[in-house]
Amino acid sequence: MPLGRLIEYEDAGAEVRAVFDDIMATRKTDWVNNFWKALAQHPETLRRTWESVKQVMAPGALDPLTKELLYVAVSVTNNCDYCITSHTAGARLKGMDDAMLHELMAVVGMANETNRLANGYQIPVDEHLRAVARGEVG
Amino acid sequence: MPLGRLIEYEDAGAEVRAVFDDIMATRKTDWVNNFWKALAQHPETLRRTWESVKQVMAPGALDPLTKELLYVAVSVTNNCDYCITSHTAGARLKGMDDAMLHELMAVVGMANETNRLANGYQIPVDEHLRAVARGEVG
Amino acid sequence: MPLGRLIEYEDAGAEVRAVFDDIMATRKTDWVNNFWKALAQHPETLRRTWESVKQVMAPGALDPLTKELLYVAVSVTNNCDYCITSHTAGARLKGMDDAMLHELMAVVGMANETNRLANGYQIPVDEHLRAVARGEVG
Amino acid sequence: MPLGRLIEYEDAGAEVRAVFDDIMATRKTDWVNNFWKALAQHPETLRRTWESVKQVMAPGALDPLTKELLYVAVSVTNNCDYCITSHTAGARLKGMDDAMLHELMAVVGMANETNRLANGYQIPVDEHLRAVARGEVG
Amino acid sequence: MPLGRLIEYEDAGAEVRAVFDDIMATRKTDWVNNFWKALAQHPETLRRTWESVKQVMAPGALDPLTKELLYVAVSVTNNCDYCITSHTAGARLKGMDDAMLHELMAVVGMANETNRLANGYQIPVDEHLRAVARGEVG
Amino acid sequence: MPLGRLIEYEDAGAEVRAVFDDIMATRKTDWVNNFWKALAQHPETLRRTWESVKQVMAPGALDPLTKELLYVAVSVTNNCDYCITSHTAGARLKGMDDAMLHELMAVVGMANETNRLANGYQIPVDEHLRAVARGEVG
Repeated sequence: MPLGRLIEYEDAGAEVRAVFDDIMATRKTDWVNNFWKALAQHPETLRRTWESVKQVMAPGALDPLTKELLYVAVSVTNNCDYCITSHTAGARLKGMDDAMLHELMAVVGMANETNRLANGYQIPVDEHLRAVARGEVG
Repeated sequence: MPLGRLIEYEDAGAEVRAVFDDIMATRKTDWVNNFWKALAQHPETLRRTWESVKQVMAPGALDPLTKELLYVAVSVTNNCDYCITSHTAGARLKGMDDAMLHELMAVVGMANETNRLANGYQIPVDEHLRAVARGEVG
Repeated sequence: MPLGRLIEYEDAGAEVRAVFDDIMATRKTDWVNNFWKALAQHPETLRRTWESVKQVMAPGALDPLTKELLYVAVSVTNNCDYCITSHTAGARLKGMDDAMLHELMAVVGMANETNRLANGYQIPVDEHLRAVARGEVG
Repeated sequence: MPLGRLIEYEDAGAEVRAVFDDIMATRKTDWVNNFWKALAQHPETLRRTWESVKQVMAPGALDPLTKELLYVAVSVTNNCDYCITSHTAGARLKGMDDAMLHELMAVVGMANETNRLANGYQIPVDEHLRAVARGEVG
Repeated sequence: MPLGRLIEYEDAGAEVRAVFDDIMATRKTDWVNNFWKALAQHPETLRRTWESVKQVMAPGALDPLTKELLYVAVSVTNNCDYCITSHTAGARLKGMDDAMLHELMAVVGMANETNRLANGYQIPVDEHLRAVARGEVG
Repeated sequence: MPLGRLIEYEDAGAEVRAVFDDIMATRKTDWVNNFWKALAQHPETLRRTWESVKQVMAPGALDPLTKELLYVAVSVTNNCDYCITSHTAGARLKGMDDAMLHELMAVVGMANETNRLANGYQIPVDEHLRAVARGEVG
């Protein structure tokens, strides 16, 4: 049960329906998941968030599956149950199989461990790594 | 300046040197970054962490570049400066260009935004998404 | 079901009852929510936490509604379901309407996105902003 | 030193300049802070993020100062040094005085404490609070 | 219901059974908790994680109970419900009583508060404390 | 450089001096670290926070060293540089040696890894563990 309400298509105004229609068209599906129904309580947030997600998740220098995997990695790190589920679902629909899922989890777990070791030991950043990270050194 | 000391190769015992040698051989490089020098204060942690990282980051169902991108995504979300730098460097060495870096950041930023919207609105998980996420529905 | 037990008024000792009485008197209500019943397992923590919350949330330079909104912002960022619910309730009782709730969520979401962009890109702080933040420059 | 580069106005293309111009016009100032110069590496992210921030932070049901305070609360909770500084500066320019700053910090600190107590004790949400939070009960 | 499946002993292959046997033998118990059954979907992750946990949680310079308390402190801070429960259970089996549990929660809550005050006020680290933390000064 | 100012003893009013005196007396030392000097900007927060820390960190069911270790574990997980340093220093002064420090870091790292695996896989809590955690089953 959400904070507030889920707005169904039939109860939505024209502005919300336009976004719902675009979500379904973009995703080639005939339903809208709860995330968007909750945001529809505030049509401005619904439109802005959907436009941003559509732009960010479109194919570009990174392919859509890689983007979904990144989304899952962030969602697991933040412990967002809704987001883990919805983006794992998205990744599966874009081709993630079980082996990929398990390696994703292994990387996320390991990254969380070494992040704490690096911060805990207050390890100074190597100048060489900084230069490589900035693209100044090959 | 780290908590404790950075152990240099020339000051290291045989157990630490063996790990340092394996790091350099695996990475086809002739130096070791500060992270491992700090862990070398505790050879057991050094060995265990390196063995885990080596296994987790090896090519598998996900390619090494994708794994580095996931590592950066987690490190940005956790705000680990050392890890952002070292894994951005690692990603660059494995082929990430500027366009990929910027899309990575865009996804990480957006995921952190929608994570909070989903949690903040306490949005219930759609049963259909759960089934897809579990691989029960195509 | 909590870790441990919820202590009801009728099962509580004098020290706990005194705090419960003060909670109800301060809030002009006749019931105590589960948070305090759980803390009542450790009367020292109950008293110390209540005294702090009472002091911190009292009207001052910031009004009580603004303080509740800040509490919700932190709770959403930390993903604390209990706290999101209880402080959203508190904010509503102090006058937050739906429009305010949705703008609150929008700010929290956006802040979480730009926090990651700032950390991810390791953007150096502008000296001018530091001076303004410290109140040295108008 | 950021990951990548800061794009100065004189080195920017027309698309970036248009956003920089809008930032300065909206804020009635003649300079652009580093956050936007870093995002300018990816004009699409720059434009999208600025449009979102402009919309979200505009006066609405919540006044601009309250929105800045919320931004600081999130940034402190996420430990984003850049964001703490820039939004504390923003809050000061919108009227936050020292007393308000200190109360803000006190609320953020207390919220982080009670968030952990609520999660740590796994305290069940009171049904009454849920109803109030949803706006079903006054 | 987990992402994926829980692998029961009778459905497991030899590699998974060997780990399950070692878990039960090490813990002197005749059952395996769900965490390991979920990891068993990826035998490599199961084995690596168990070997690491077994090594890290073994008695050493810190006793096993202290290690469990530390595990709970991290899990509360990260809001991991499974981990709070399983390591609180582990701590109880190693001797934690109610008084210890409540003091643990009080420390975790307080640390989360002062962490935010320190970061929020951007307090510079005292040089003397750095020297003591590094073990350079007694 | 902090947000705001550090209040030195000689510039402090009577209320702040009284807290500073109590800090030095309680800790049997003749100086006050920057954390308290920053909080002294708001005497109410200074007094409240010090009273809480003094109560929470006093010997009780957990000894003072264990409490410092827990504080470090939380601070590493939250990535609070000031707090990692000050409480590592505190732990050293209470008897933590290098071996204990390294085991502490190893537990914190591992807990952060398995926290993410548990949340990522959305592993259901075992009923038996819940009962043990609540102290209902031995």
